[in-house]
Amino acid sequence: MLKEFKRKNDGLGKEERKARIEEQRAKMVRQQQEMGEAKLPVIVLVEGWDSAGKGHLINELICEMDPRFYSVATFQRVPESEERFPFLQKFFQVLPENGKYLFLDTGWMEDTVQKYLRREITAGEYERRVESCNVFERQLRDNGYVVVKLFLHISRAEQLRRISALWENRDTAWRVTQDELWQQNEYDRFLKAYDQFMEDTQRFVPWHVLDAESRKKPLLEALEIINAASDAALARGRYVGKATDKVFPLLGGPSLKDADLTASIDPEEYKTELKRLQDKLRELHNRIYRKRIPVVLCYEGWDAAGKGGNIRRIAYPLDPRGFDVIPVASPTPGELARHYLWRFWTRLPRSGHVAIFDRTWYGRVMVERIEGFCSEDDWKRAYGEINEFEKELTDWGAVVLKFWIHIDPETQLERFTARQNTPEKQWKITEEDWRNRDKWPQYEEAVEEMLRKTSTEYAPWYIIESVDKKYARIRTLRIVTDALEKAVNEYVVRGMRSEWPEKTK
Amino acid sequence: MLKEFKRKNDGLGKEERKARIEEQRAKMVRQQQEMGEAKLPVIVLVEGWDSAGKGHLINELICEMDPRFYSVATFQRVPESEERFPFLQKFFQVLPENGKYLFLDTGWMEDTVQKYLRREITAGEYERRVESCNVFERQLRDNGYVVVKLFLHISRAEQLRRISALWENRDTAWRVTQDELWQQNEYDRFLKAYDQFMEDTQRFVPWHVLDAESRKKPLLEALEIINAASDAALARGRYVGKATDKVFPLLGGPSLKDADLTASIDPEEYKTELKRLQDKLRELHNRIYRKRIPVVLCYEGWDAAGKGGNIRRIAYPLDPRGFDVIPVASPTPGELARHYLWRFWTRLPRSGHVAIFDRTWYGRVMVERIEGFCSEDDWKRAYGEINEFEKELTDWGAVVLKFWIHIDPETQLERFTARQNTPEKQWKITEEDWRNRDKWPQYEEAVEEMLRKTSTEYAPWYIIESVDKKYARIRTLRIVTDALEKAVNEYVVRGMRSEWPEKTK
Repeated sequence: MLKEFKRKNDGLGKEERKARIEEQRAKMVRQQQEMGEAKLPVIVLVEGWDSAGKGHLINELICEMDPRFYSVATFQRVPESEERFPFLQKFFQVLPENGKYLFLDTGWMEDTVQKYLRREITAGEYERRVESCNVFERQLRDNGYVVVKLFLHISRAEQLRRISALWENRDTAWRVTQDELWQQNEYDRFLKAYDQFMEDTQRFVPWHVLDAESRKKPLLEALEIINAASDAALARGRYVGKATDKVFPLLGGPSLKDADLTASIDPEEYKTELKRLQDKLRELHNRIYRKRIPVVLCYEGWDAAGKGGNIRRIAYPLDPRGFDVIPVASPTPGELARHYLWRFWTRLPRSGHVAIFDRTWYGRVMVERIEGFCSEDDWKRAYGEINEFEKELTDWGAVVLKFWIHIDPETQLERFTARQNTPEKQWKITEEDWRNRDKWPQYEEAVEEMLRKTSTEYAPWYIIESVDKKYARIRTLRIVTDALEKAVNEYVVRGMRSEWPEKTK
Repeated sequence: MLKEFKRKNDGLGKEERKARIEEQRAKMVRQQQEMGEAKLPVIVLVEGWDSAGKGHLINELICEMDPRFYSVATFQRVPESEERFPFLQKFFQVLPENGKYLFLDTGWMEDTVQKYLRREITAGEYERRVESCNVFERQLRDNGYVVVKLFLHISRAEQLRRISALWENRDTAWRVTQDELWQQNEYDRFLKAYDQFMEDTQRFVPWHVLDAESRKKPLLEALEIINAASDAALARGRYVGKATDKVFPLLGGPSLKDADLTASIDPEEYKTELKRLQDKLRELHNRIYRKRIPVVLCYEGWDAAGKGGNIRRIAYPLDPRGFDVIPVASPTPGELARHYLWRFWTRLPRSGHVAIFDRTWYGRVMVERIEGFCSEDDWKRAYGEINEFEKELTDWGAVVLKFWIHIDPETQLERFTARQNTPEKQWKITEEDWRNRDKWPQYEEAVEEMLRKTSTEYAPWYIIESVDKKYARIRTLRIVTDALEKAVNEYVVRGMRSEWPEKTK
């Protein structure tokens, strides 16, 4: 894309360009209003050469906009060895709400290319990140985001002129960093790498290369591109993607039908096993902390199946400085106004920490599906999106385990009744629980489909029979300690998991 | 407190203690429910010696609690030179919502004492922080938080035993850090410093020193203390503090009556001045960034006074990587459920950055006062709390400037009418604007009181006459550039501003 790039003279005189810019800027201000009313979110990614004027361009774009409805994000360069989250996390973090604009002063392109050229990530890892960027862009598009990607292009000579101008002024010399000199020196290597990255990430959202050799030209072009994208979105309405036919390494998934709900444990055995496994888990927590292995434990299950008590038995031996229990309730307005995975991306554990999700992103294919809180396309697409999300986590090095805490309707009725009849437990039972209970068959169908479509080799589902809650706790503790032990022994270096991991069972 | 501390034998046998712990723990679980219903937030600060078992205690406290209603916070030790926010910011950040519990594994005590003993802050700065901690605790109490402060005390010999035990086990040896060895070596110096800090911060919330020489004893004591605090809060209901009689170095404050609304500027002069001042501001932005001076610009004013356009003229020359415009609308449910300054504490600029608040914390003493969104005690107390907040900012080294963008009712009517009659501006005018307009006299009274009570030497108010919007922009730009120029030239070292700064005018 850069190699064949030819500068074109648009033939505009100074005054003429100024007038066009004013016109397009006024249009953008009007459109900001309309996009706000249509609740369409816009992401403008500004990438490009050092000193190409990215910050300046963003400033010129926002200068007439209403600050309530846009934000600008920049990211500090963090060496790969110090990153504590999957690399996409920082971009998910800043996603704008519906109806708002986000301008990124470099993003997933610069992050990936820089780390590759600095040899902080391997060629295999680079390939994986390119794929992740594509997945990210597709997910944004499918979930209604308008994404515009711009690259500000300047020649090597022009870059040198700009760096020299900064250098020669005593007030600006400090802005010339080693990074910029390095890029200037290795211009051709960067050109090749930028070019390759753009070629590789044209699949879902196109790149626009802007001629930034003069200051005003890219502004007009950028305004025109953003306005055209908004025009298209306003005409078409919110885009809702279909499910992809991407294939994941599915395990076939366990089925509720195969669960043996009579499974139980002798109370004395429970006591000794609980102590033994909790001691083991305490020790493993130490070791995963030192090895910086992130752990994500997902709890789903029927109401009154015993999730809370099960979670407490896992959490008890953990050092409170190294884990979080994340209770997931109905989304807040700010969460509803963003990609449905946003509230989970922003609550991931740091590397070396444990996050226990009490209900999860699978709400999308259960309650949201059944109650009609999202469209059919949305929940059908979600299986793949969730598999992709969990693959990001395991590629990052996380241990991801998913538990369906299982009981039968009769047991649930008993427990509901017991709660109703115990004053200090009444708060645990609500009208909604009874309503959900009436929908048992629909939920059962949704659960089976979920288990079938999202039990992957890298993030398996486990059905935990929980009529005997003690049995369920021991079973879960065993699965967790086995998986952590395996991870501690196998795990070598972060960023090396570019292949599907071996089967976990 | 520590010097005169005597271990007491509570005479409990093992089984007896166990039974009492179970009883108190069950009570705490019930109370969690009641505190949730009463919407009372609880903060449990756990301080103490290294290896005293702070993490272990917190774990034992939370192990039966419902994870939806508590959180645990720990803080990494960041050297003072790398801190980018005022030191209280990190504690404000984690404040729990109403009805929830927060457990802090060390907090403002350890942060202050460690930095003082490490000579990262001066004695004068230490004094200032002690005062800030007191102010913080009073503000928490006055705003309805139940605060419990615990200190886990062990002897030097016991600490040595615990460190040795860790050291001798190959799986735990890595947990023994230089910090712990340092504390063990300088036990007496630490004892004196901890003691002093506790003496100095008994004013609003008492300290409880717990005997942590044996593992189980502090647990029972902690449970009893927390339960007693909750009992008291449940019996009394939410505490609402009265205004304090603390005296601030007030400037007397400008009055709306003295404003000359005929002030105007010649359009040609406007053009040249605008360019000159924006160029100057661009250059100053560079310099404050390098000197890491934080800047907080506050905009308040009548509807349609021209705040938006004024802000855009300030923002235009700034590098978008170094500033944020923070539009302040009605608080979200999560914001309403916390200290009213929480949403501002969490949006402060990093040092070296500029934050422009489009409406501010002064909503408390204007719209919230007039519309009755808070009690009379609340808004009357707020003048002092806000002065304290702004003092934290300026002590941290921030430049804080506050602008009241001023017009008369006739000008407002003209602008409202013009908006109503211009299709693309109609969205800017709502029913609420007309309702607010009817309350002009009440607002005028509130504004005058605000200007009088919160125009301090360190964070002054400026009335910006804005019937001629161009005049207003130039005036604001001049104030901002003058203040930044002064700050850049005067500012020496962070953490040295322990005295009231010189008059800014």
